[in-house]
Amino acid sequence: MKATILTVGTEILFGQIVNTNAAYLSQQLNGLGIDVLYHHTVGDNSHRLKDLLSRAFEETDLVITTGGLGPTEDDLTKETVCEVMGDELVRDEAALAHLRDYEKRTGRKMTDNNYKQAYLPSRAAVFINESGTAPAFALEADGRTAICLPGPPRELKWLFENKVRPYLEERSGESIFYRQLRLFGIGESALETRLLPLIDPQTDPTIATYAKEGECSVRVASKRKSKREAEEAVDEMCGKIAALVGEYIYSYDNEELYALTGRMLLEKKLTVSCAESLTGGLFAKTLTDIPGISAVFDRGIVTYSNRAKMEELGVSGRTLDSAGAVSRETAEEMALGLYRKTGSDVCVSATGIAGPDGGSDEKPVGLVYLGLCFRGRTTVRECRLTPPFRNVIRNSAMLNMFDMIYKAIR
Amino acid sequence: MKATILTVGTEILFGQIVNTNAAYLSQQLNGLGIDVLYHHTVGDNSHRLKDLLSRAFEETDLVITTGGLGPTEDDLTKETVCEVMGDELVRDEAALAHLRDYEKRTGRKMTDNNYKQAYLPSRAAVFINESGTAPAFALEADGRTAICLPGPPRELKWLFENKVRPYLEERSGESIFYRQLRLFGIGESALETRLLPLIDPQTDPTIATYAKEGECSVRVASKRKSKREAEEAVDEMCGKIAALVGEYIYSYDNEELYALTGRMLLEKKLTVSCAESLTGGLFAKTLTDIPGISAVFDRGIVTYSNRAKMEELGVSGRTLDSAGAVSRETAEEMALGLYRKTGSDVCVSATGIAGPDGGSDEKPVGLVYLGLCFRGRTTVRECRLTPPFRNVIRNSAMLNMFDMIYKAIR
Repeated sequence: MKATILTVGTEILFGQIVNTNAAYLSQQLNGLGIDVLYHHTVGDNSHRLKDLLSRAFEETDLVITTGGLGPTEDDLTKETVCEVMGDELVRDEAALAHLRDYEKRTGRKMTDNNYKQAYLPSRAAVFINESGTAPAFALEADGRTAICLPGPPRELKWLFENKVRPYLEERSGESIFYRQLRLFGIGESALETRLLPLIDPQTDPTIATYAKEGECSVRVASKRKSKREAEEAVDEMCGKIAALVGEYIYSYDNEELYALTGRMLLEKKLTVSCAESLTGGLFAKTLTDIPGISAVFDRGIVTYSNRAKMEELGVSGRTLDSAGAVSRETAEEMALGLYRKTGSDVCVSATGIAGPDGGSDEKPVGLVYLGLCFRGRTTVRECRLTPPFRNVIRNSAMLNMFDMIYKAIR
Repeated sequence: MKATILTVGTEILFGQIVNTNAAYLSQQLNGLGIDVLYHHTVGDNSHRLKDLLSRAFEETDLVITTGGLGPTEDDLTKETVCEVMGDELVRDEAALAHLRDYEKRTGRKMTDNNYKQAYLPSRAAVFINESGTAPAFALEADGRTAICLPGPPRELKWLFENKVRPYLEERSGESIFYRQLRLFGIGESALETRLLPLIDPQTDPTIATYAKEGECSVRVASKRKSKREAEEAVDEMCGKIAALVGEYIYSYDNEELYALTGRMLLEKKLTVSCAESLTGGLFAKTLTDIPGISAVFDRGIVTYSNRAKMEELGVSGRTLDSAGAVSRETAEEMALGLYRKTGSDVCVSATGIAGPDGGSDEKPVGLVYLGLCFRGRTTVRECRLTPPFRNVIRNSAMLNMFDMIYKAIR
């Protein structure tokens, strides 16, 4: 089955709202083994909506619309779907009863146009919306299906979970399974080059590589008669990928590096503290994105000034004078000083030049030293990260800090 | 001018990525007086891309594509645009030089497929991408224009600001001037209600309100024969807006609160330190997003454990026992203790409950206390932020810290 997601709403075209519904529906449909070929967005304009809808049915057999089901004048979706699929709106007694009930429960007096929402295509399967007022529906004609959902994300999700998914599962014959592998320490081009022998002849499972800042991921997906068959095919392909680039893979389940590392610290009950110059709190901020991390996170010290490095971490003035604040020696003394102060199992430190200024030939922007003191044993990683963006350098340094911890404690 | 935004990328159709680029481009194009009629998204499929592109040119005279410009095999945008608009890819020497320069600067050896990015349509206006590798371009044919941008949002924004906007402005006969006002401490609904007398009769200047997490902004734009005329119209309207909501406006030039506050700290040579529990380093991280802030930022202490609050900041055990870690008293002692330790002119602190767990009837998730010690005088702000999202609560708390500092030092 092939699908189009058709979003109706001028506010999307103005850029006032980001279209998260399309992403949500795509995930859900892919999970059901339905290929999403297009997302379209059109404003509250009957002519253009009709045109797009007709074309969507030429290209795909399922069209899911969102938006334009409300009570106001610019809500045109139902009328337009009826026009394209040859049906007409009639009063639906169940929908009307739901509206009256809603009115009673909330004590909110409805205006006349609210009752417009009880008019639905005569042949539609009606989905009563228990999370709002506008009912949704599915309408079939000539082997094609339109499913029309309201725009508010909470209502849309409730309706999908409770009404649309069961409706679609009953109609589909195939299952999809996928894994999202995450890698650290290899760029997307290099990754693709190494995976070419697998990517080139791909039919099923499919393999796709994605780049995020400082990280890569690989999606391996299979569509088969049963979920189990699909899962076996995906796992076999994952084995082949691991044979080529296994040393870079840290997750087969799309877990982020910081979340994985945090989870391992919690599981192993390892306490952690950090001393940050370059990253200025980014490591601590990211670690504390994890709910419950307070069980193992003792403290972070952002030592931006040399004075703070000396006072807080006991970095020696001589080291700062001779080797400089951005040096292997300083990173080491920061991690060690933090360990002496806190006794945390894992003490990590960062110093470097984020730019745009402050670089030299000898110590260019992007030069970074990261220290790790794991149960008293200190190591230092040198990174030469890519200028010119301060936030990219800081972000890569932060990811490298998590990578160092992950590799030390796994 | 009427525009289509055409996003290319299978990851969007899988729902792995939310299409924020389309929202960003819509805002920008609307700001330039260009009507966006459609958003379309298609996967990395040459046939469907070609089809959509041809149809987009039947309906609109400007098509902006995003994605599919990278070095890998599934990057097909350039080839397809050439096919539809009758051009061919040739090696662009400037783009090649940029790639080689990038390779040299980063010391990263490029694979052969990277150089594919230097091939561009022969008649294109090439936009060198100083924030990445893939160059962008504009191509005109038969009165229609395609502008092709890479997918990563950071690169797309850099290219739009620095290359595409000037390109589009030059082609439109009119001049646009706009200001983006930023407000803190008022919600979007309340803001819109207060501005209704100005919004309702609007023709030119136009007024649009936007909500960001914890902040609002108002965009006032005018399109006139000359830039000066437009600027005068915008400034007159800004005066009217200030008469209605002036107490919330902190910038008329889209400066972010943290950047404005950081700039003022630098200008006034006020040293700053922070003590964070709730925000876990987010304040320090955001402050150190500002290049050069090291001139005034001494240190940050992330005191996640009670032990750290006592050892690092001298918060008394009695206070922690009686009032609790999340209390007015603890916030005050944190700020004051930090001042005693560092002597910084501005010492700010945060404690609170980010959730999802840890809340109680008396102290619910979202309860936050922020302390500020400005030259030895301490004040505390209590905020009751909206659950359920941990990151929203932490972000709002961080913005409130900057707001406290801004109001104290302005």
